Amino acid sequence: MDYCTDTDRLLDQGLVNRAVEAAFADHGNGRVQMPPKSYITLSEGDFRTMPAYLPSLGIAGVKIVNVHPGNPSRGLPTVMALTVILDLATGVPVAILNATRLTDLRTGAAGAVAAKYLAPEKEIVLGMAGTGRQAEAQVNAIAAELHIAKLKVWSRNPAHAEAFAARYPGYSAAAAPIEEVCDCDVLVTTTPSRVPIIRDDWIQAGTHINAIGADAAGKEELDPAILARAQVFVDDPAQAVHSGEINVPVRRGLYHERELAGTLGEVVIGRKQRRDRDAVTVFDSTGLAIQDLAIASLALKQGTRIPLPFP
Amino acid sequence: MDYCTDTDRLLDQGLVNRAVEAAFADHGNGRVQMPPKSYITLSEGDFRTMPAYLPSLGIAGVKIVNVHPGNPSRGLPTVMALTVILDLATGVPVAILNATRLTDLRTGAAGAVAAKYLAPEKEIVLGMAGTGRQAEAQVNAIAAELHIAKLKVWSRNPAHAEAFAARYPGYSAAAAPIEEVCDCDVLVTTTPSRVPIIRDDWIQAGTHINAIGADAAGKEELDPAILARAQVFVDDPAQAVHSGEINVPVRRGLYHERELAGTLGEVVIGRKQRRDRDAVTVFDSTGLAIQDLAIASLALKQGTRIPLPFP
Repeated sequence: MDYCTDTDRLLDQGLVNRAVEAAFADHGNGRVQMPPKSYITLSEGDFRTMPAYLPSLGIAGVKIVNVHPGNPSRGLPTVMALTVILDLATGVPVAILNATRLTDLRTGAAGAVAAKYLAPEKEIVLGMAGTGRQAEAQVNAIAAELHIAKLKVWSRNPAHAEAFAARYPGYSAAAAPIEEVCDCDVLVTTTPSRVPIIRDDWIQAGTHINAIGADAAGKEELDPAILARAQVFVDDPAQAVHSGEINVPVRRGLYHERELAGTLGEVVIGRKQRRDRDAVTVFDSTGLAIQDLAIASLALKQGTRIPLPFP
Repeated sequence: MDYCTDTDRLLDQGLVNRAVEAAFADHGNGRVQMPPKSYITLSEGDFRTMPAYLPSLGIAGVKIVNVHPGNPSRGLPTVMALTVILDLATGVPVAILNATRLTDLRTGAAGAVAAKYLAPEKEIVLGMAGTGRQAEAQVNAIAAELHIAKLKVWSRNPAHAEAFAARYPGYSAAAAPIEEVCDCDVLVTTTPSRVPIIRDDWIQAGTHINAIGADAAGKEELDPAILARAQVFVDDPAQAVHSGEINVPVRRGLYHERELAGTLGEVVIGRKQRRDRDAVTVFDSTGLAIQDLAIASLALKQGTRIPLPFP
């Protein structure tokens, strides 16, 4: 058994996107084992346990990931993760991966796969609401799939938007008011908001939205009226109802699971698609354990390995 | 974050029993968080993911444990485990425990707690059906709670029964036919059987049975007629229905969850008890994540620690 760290440093984003895309295809075809993510609530945060088995890659394991919003004030990331990989034939744990940055990358990759299939064009104006680590992961992952002609950035803190935009001079990046950011081809929301911050009348026909921020009960970023007129695709219906962008509207009776257009897996295998050029499409991302296995299959090939005595 | 191994070597069985007993008391009082154990099925075995939070001990984490019956032929244990412990305030993984032998010990401790509360006497004749690692753990744990006047041992392989008995000269231990072993005060079954091996007419009034072997769908050791006349206590009703001794009878309509006498937690807090001297009592053990946290809280204080870079 090895402890594996710094495995993300040389990962190629395009390869990560392909591995995650293949995992979604397996999911769409019903070829994975993935019990529901389970939550433990602590006083200052929570942690989630995510087991899965991805037969096509011959990999099985469990990710354990926390969300503690107060961590940055202690000098720690809000989200940290470990992934334990088991040998299929014997059940021996063969690797424990430091999966904090891998989690960022695989969530970015899911957004990139959604944008690849659902964006109205291959050359896009990309709007970002939120400028944290996941915002960066989304831009980098989407850039491996689509041509970003322009990048518009909004943050509650204008200085954060300016700083984020300054990191992407190649994409004509600039900070902008939120309603201007929403005037784009692909909008990515990565805030921790618990009230809708994206108004329905700001979203033009044909826009694709990656709704990434809502990852726990009570969180939401989009006006429910957007969901009502959009084709909403989820990674996993049960997880989305529990903790995705649709969780609050579903609980309030403003949206129903039966209105969902399908899963990203179904989009990847061609069973579902964007209705037409003018449809608004939403990808409601909660994060699947199979994404963690897909990126682990690449990460295991590099980085630092520390051998540990087991059994 | 540390990797912790060999933490079991100096563990005091009495302290382990008390920690596990306290965890069952918390469970009986509804003071734990413990989502259902989830199973992933592999071609040659399975693995289970067991998250929990035990507020009374201030400990939270996840055990990952496999069951691969073919492992001994490869020189590996059938069951191996890791437990990841998270800091409550920040969610940082603080320790990864090699939990293979801890799993044996905590399962033994649950049996000992059940026998302490449900055995008809404090001085007992102990019957063992099965002679594997868990049989040894049960004898050692029960010996810390009750006086073992005599130990009778059965195994499908008579040489195994002789060898097991030879390890306990202090308890007047001897191998015996299975029906003779069943003539005892406390019977412990630890076999991997998928058909009942303990017949109803072998079990005297007043016997307590620890049914340990059935830990997955399809496994059973006791004639369902024993369950029908006994007070059956479980560690957790949902887990027992899914994978405990009652799982096959429940699926066949021979036993119903509503017939359960209660949980071991309810017994420990005095809410439920042995009906009278002549009752047959059964403890159907499936193994709870809170047992793993209880023993981890002791194990973390000793053994070898290997520091690992995180985050």
